[in-house]
Amino acid sequence: MDDQNAATDAGTAIAVAEESNQPIIGQKDKLEELCVNTIRFLAVDGVEKAKSGHPGTPMGMADMAFVIWTDFLRHDPTATKWTNRDRFVLSAGHASMLLYSMLHLTGYSDMTLDELKQFRQWDSRTAGHPEYGHAKGIEVTTGPLGQGFANGVGMGLAARMMAARFNGEDAFKPVDHYIYAICSDGDLMEGISSEAASIAGHLGLGNLIYFYDDNNISIEGETRLSFSEDIKKRFESCGWHVQKIDGHDRGAIRKAIKKAQKVTGQPSMIIAKTIIGWGSPKFHGTARAHGEPLGADEVKATKESLGWPAEPTFHIPVPVREEFLRKTKKLSRERKKWEKGFSEWKSRNVELAAQWDTYWSHKVPDNFESELVAAGNSDKALATRALSGQVIQKLAAIAPFVVGGSADLAPSTSTLMKEGGSIERSKGAEGQSPALDVFKGRNLHFGIREHAMGAVLNGMTLYGSFRAYGATFLIFSDYMRPSVRLAALMKVPSIFIYTHDSVFLGEDGPTHQPIEHLWALRLIPNMMLWRPADGAETALAWAAAVRSTDGPTVMVLTRQKLDPIPRTGPVDIKAIQHGAYLLEGFTEGNITFIATGSELSLAIKTAQLLGREGVKARVASAPCLDLFDRQSVDYQNSVLGDRKRVVAIEAGRSSGWYKYVEHGALIIGIDRYGASSPAERIAEELGFTPEKIAAKVREWM
Amino acid sequence: MDDQNAATDAGTAIAVAEESNQPIIGQKDKLEELCVNTIRFLAVDGVEKAKSGHPGTPMGMADMAFVIWTDFLRHDPTATKWTNRDRFVLSAGHASMLLYSMLHLTGYSDMTLDELKQFRQWDSRTAGHPEYGHAKGIEVTTGPLGQGFANGVGMGLAARMMAARFNGEDAFKPVDHYIYAICSDGDLMEGISSEAASIAGHLGLGNLIYFYDDNNISIEGETRLSFSEDIKKRFESCGWHVQKIDGHDRGAIRKAIKKAQKVTGQPSMIIAKTIIGWGSPKFHGTARAHGEPLGADEVKATKESLGWPAEPTFHIPVPVREEFLRKTKKLSRERKKWEKGFSEWKSRNVELAAQWDTYWSHKVPDNFESELVAAGNSDKALATRALSGQVIQKLAAIAPFVVGGSADLAPSTSTLMKEGGSIERSKGAEGQSPALDVFKGRNLHFGIREHAMGAVLNGMTLYGSFRAYGATFLIFSDYMRPSVRLAALMKVPSIFIYTHDSVFLGEDGPTHQPIEHLWALRLIPNMMLWRPADGAETALAWAAAVRSTDGPTVMVLTRQKLDPIPRTGPVDIKAIQHGAYLLEGFTEGNITFIATGSELSLAIKTAQLLGREGVKARVASAPCLDLFDRQSVDYQNSVLGDRKRVVAIEAGRSSGWYKYVEHGALIIGIDRYGASSPAERIAEELGFTPEKIAAKVREWM
Repeated sequence: MDDQNAATDAGTAIAVAEESNQPIIGQKDKLEELCVNTIRFLAVDGVEKAKSGHPGTPMGMADMAFVIWTDFLRHDPTATKWTNRDRFVLSAGHASMLLYSMLHLTGYSDMTLDELKQFRQWDSRTAGHPEYGHAKGIEVTTGPLGQGFANGVGMGLAARMMAARFNGEDAFKPVDHYIYAICSDGDLMEGISSEAASIAGHLGLGNLIYFYDDNNISIEGETRLSFSEDIKKRFESCGWHVQKIDGHDRGAIRKAIKKAQKVTGQPSMIIAKTIIGWGSPKFHGTARAHGEPLGADEVKATKESLGWPAEPTFHIPVPVREEFLRKTKKLSRERKKWEKGFSEWKSRNVELAAQWDTYWSHKVPDNFESELVAAGNSDKALATRALSGQVIQKLAAIAPFVVGGSADLAPSTSTLMKEGGSIERSKGAEGQSPALDVFKGRNLHFGIREHAMGAVLNGMTLYGSFRAYGATFLIFSDYMRPSVRLAALMKVPSIFIYTHDSVFLGEDGPTHQPIEHLWALRLIPNMMLWRPADGAETALAWAAAVRSTDGPTVMVLTRQKLDPIPRTGPVDIKAIQHGAYLLEGFTEGNITFIATGSELSLAIKTAQLLGREGVKARVASAPCLDLFDRQSVDYQNSVLGDRKRVVAIEAGRSSGWYKYVEHGALIIGIDRYGASSPAERIAEELGFTPEKIAAKVREWM
Repeated sequence: MDDQNAATDAGTAIAVAEESNQPIIGQKDKLEELCVNTIRFLAVDGVEKAKSGHPGTPMGMADMAFVIWTDFLRHDPTATKWTNRDRFVLSAGHASMLLYSMLHLTGYSDMTLDELKQFRQWDSRTAGHPEYGHAKGIEVTTGPLGQGFANGVGMGLAARMMAARFNGEDAFKPVDHYIYAICSDGDLMEGISSEAASIAGHLGLGNLIYFYDDNNISIEGETRLSFSEDIKKRFESCGWHVQKIDGHDRGAIRKAIKKAQKVTGQPSMIIAKTIIGWGSPKFHGTARAHGEPLGADEVKATKESLGWPAEPTFHIPVPVREEFLRKTKKLSRERKKWEKGFSEWKSRNVELAAQWDTYWSHKVPDNFESELVAAGNSDKALATRALSGQVIQKLAAIAPFVVGGSADLAPSTSTLMKEGGSIERSKGAEGQSPALDVFKGRNLHFGIREHAMGAVLNGMTLYGSFRAYGATFLIFSDYMRPSVRLAALMKVPSIFIYTHDSVFLGEDGPTHQPIEHLWALRLIPNMMLWRPADGAETALAWAAAVRSTDGPTVMVLTRQKLDPIPRTGPVDIKAIQHGAYLLEGFTEGNITFIATGSELSLAIKTAQLLGREGVKARVASAPCLDLFDRQSVDYQNSVLGDRKRVVAIEAGRSSGWYKYVEHGALIIGIDRYGASSPAERIAEELGFTPEKIAAKVREWM
């Protein structure tokens, strides 16, 4: 049976088992069929044992996965962090058993057969959806649809940027690989994939080779219930190279990948028509195959129809095992050959090699913090976004691996690296792909696509060589919240910059004025949110963000100018790194003001005003409550004092502060939507002036 | 000068002022030019006076707005809630002065010239972005990009659904209007617009006539920096009818609208090439014209170049005033004529007319609450999603104006109205538009497009005749958060159903397990979040949602089965409507358990377990803390008792509970990410069993 026939017969019973001896099937085809069916039944058995999961998609995608992983994907299970490996992204994360099976079959040592049998069980490496960090070879956490699609774009962009920096005249090219991804209907329906596709097409990321598993089925039934796009036309409209194939025709899959590899100036989308639940006599091509186990009877019937032994489950025929190991050994040899070439390249290119190491190690100078604090210094009133802009210029000079951009707001977010150069489509002829040189730049232009920006940043950060930031207004953090959460869940140190952080942005009004966003972001576990009050705090927020290895940083900055915080002598870096600390000159008193960002100078002014009336007040700055939470209770008490005698001031929802103060304390927040008006009037009306706060404090005391 | 020339000369100085007497311009053209320039200069002067705003876009869009509002838009400034008015959505909300100017010129009585002069000032009707409710004729709050685009789709869908219900054989058709919208680059870059466009194209919403203001400029510079899609091809790929015109050629605009009106089976996109800041000698066609005032010098130069008097500002030439008033009078007459026809239709169609009134008044039976409570009743353990499903079937029977759907999860969210019929593309030939009959259904299929679902629901709800719900998993509330917030900001009673509400959804794992989402949603002002514990609470959540007129409802439901809450005698509806209340049989004790949703039965079991040890505990259910917040302090104290002796249990972030309890109370929450595993094991590991909680309580006591 040749590939063409295999495709034609898709969905009908094909007996190609170990013991079968159909003469028309060549040895290679027979072995392949055996391999593909092994992948299918590992998924079927895994889901069946877990009594939970998605069998149909792995069954449908098995041909694709087999071809990608055995004929194309350059990886080495014994060197899983090899920089020049191809990345594989299973954007359709619900098909996780497919990925786990591939990792097991290709020899990733931590993905044992026992792990496959522990699918979806407590403490296993084989979670319901692939979780980054749970096992080697899982490049990214996927499951929330559309995210993987956009993460892959970030990886492809990072690869292009590394290639632009390091693939010089030398015959050896240190960065020379692809990003493979498999996406589902759901991925393509989510808006984030449209955003990311637009970015990828715009930048001509020819290193992306994406498959769309076009199986016509979603949870509610056939996709045509809600999905009737011309996908080919859609992707062409944003600059992709598109092919349409039969997703069960392995010859066609091979041809399509080869063609896609040759298209270097456009990302590739391969629309692969598949049958969900391929091989299941009853459920193939139906929604029933999507999200629940086939059930004992149908498993039996499916195994019978494909000539597969009913027992043992998780069966891996010996020839299959041998075939995968043979391929893996070959891959290992190829990787080692690359390492040799790379090591020779390093000795020929000493300076570049040193830079290379800086990129991958994220090495910063020993005096990193103090350099940034110096850069963030200002005697005059400046917005923290402007102070951050000063720090970014210093980062540009001393940390080459820091890159970033904004969602079409760079002039407003002050995030442009002035000397960094822009990554933008070359202004050549229509359809012409950007030259590699374009990717030498450090300033990214995400367009008005916050969600894709978040996921692209995650992909770039996961790639490994960059610390990447993305900026927008704080209100629009809502547009990208799923990606922010995933960074935190993955413990990936993406950097999210949010300016225009309160009602004091003024005239743009309630649609643009964050109220609940500070606390909503602080609720996301495993993330550091900084809301600095001056240049020193802004600089240390940046230092923490760049140094982080175990989670994302959110930086919240003002639009409006803030008076400098009085500091005599050198900045007390350690104090700020505690997340909250008492300000010098305000360490004694009967009440304690605690404030963040723009409200700190308000607290100081109120304390001074009350001081003239004989009320002595302490003032604490709390640039990072997430860090403060990690301090000892003694330290926390030393900052807060009597928790009933605290005045907390923050221009946002008040409720989060109850965690830090006792009932009876005074919390001055904003529990309504804002208003369109010059900021001064808003401050007056909402009671955010020293006089109004002093009056409230007097009444409260 | 004919229209063609006007277009050709776009961007160069054209003197067409009141006093000019260029012989080649016909009287009509001259008057039109005067009208359009009036619109331009109202925007220029408004932004200049406010020293803040976006002058360039209104200047570029003025021709479009003029043609739409004077030649096509059926509306009546004296009857702003006329059901059959055309809706106008300014998705590019930053061009708000354009809308305010049109409202003023066409005679909306509350949009006075003084209001235009108060642009972006405290307490004015003329906020930085259009705010629904601030002035008549503002159909929807816009500004966060892409939202208006999707809101319009919701309006168009609602109109089709009303037409399917009421446009019968009678010659008079009660629903027979269009949705006009103007969108910007930013709207189209946001993923939500791709999602919404896909829905609109899929459903063939021919009543949508959208303009894309293709001005090549975004904040960071030329759009080609980040945007190189073939927009025509993109919209065609999802089933839209697309035209490309010169956006300053009013003749072409007219022709395009007429053509679009004739395309009844596809939504229409008119790509209108415009020049941002049209008329400004220095800034036209530049990013500089986008987001800040032109400045005194350039205002002067622009007025000179268009032959406009420098003073007074906010100048409206008498012929312009008269022309608009003439058109408005005509519109009023047409509306009155419609009313007459409608009143005759009502008398000919008595039964339909009664239904019509039910739709627009949202009238429910007097015993609405008790009917729903009866429907939600169950003696056996059921998930609250299933109980909600029971209530929905009752709603289907007694509240015809309730409609809804899910983001491809109906079988999981239990939101299908079994007898409701589906709104789905007719299964006819490719390209064939759905028959009107299709829209008779009540079940919507949003596809895996949560964000568009949120905004489409808002649009449907704003339309006025429906109470519409949309469902997905709680984790994916993050995907649609900007739309949820806008519903709350607009005080629009959209209904958001979120199931699979905790780690107890089990095997799908951390990517699907909400942790921070309950509190993140509760932070949004002006929204009611219900997390019911049984059928009675679920029913009353639905009753509140359907009755709400002043804000959205979020309903949070379990995947897993819950034991029924012991209630003897009739359900105490009033108690539940307090948002939190003591359970009968658990009103006395030294400590108070308070819990929501699935943790209530856990609290009861723990109390019973401790009771056997002689510890007497009160148990409070808190299905809606937002309602509880509105109760008197006395009532709140009566429920919580000694706030130091409270045990709060909720399977999510703990921090929000500090608002309700004193430090020293015991808060049992989840402050880490979840895990992929069967739910029972998760409960065991995270300490959510009666035994584990009892142990914690003993230690704490």
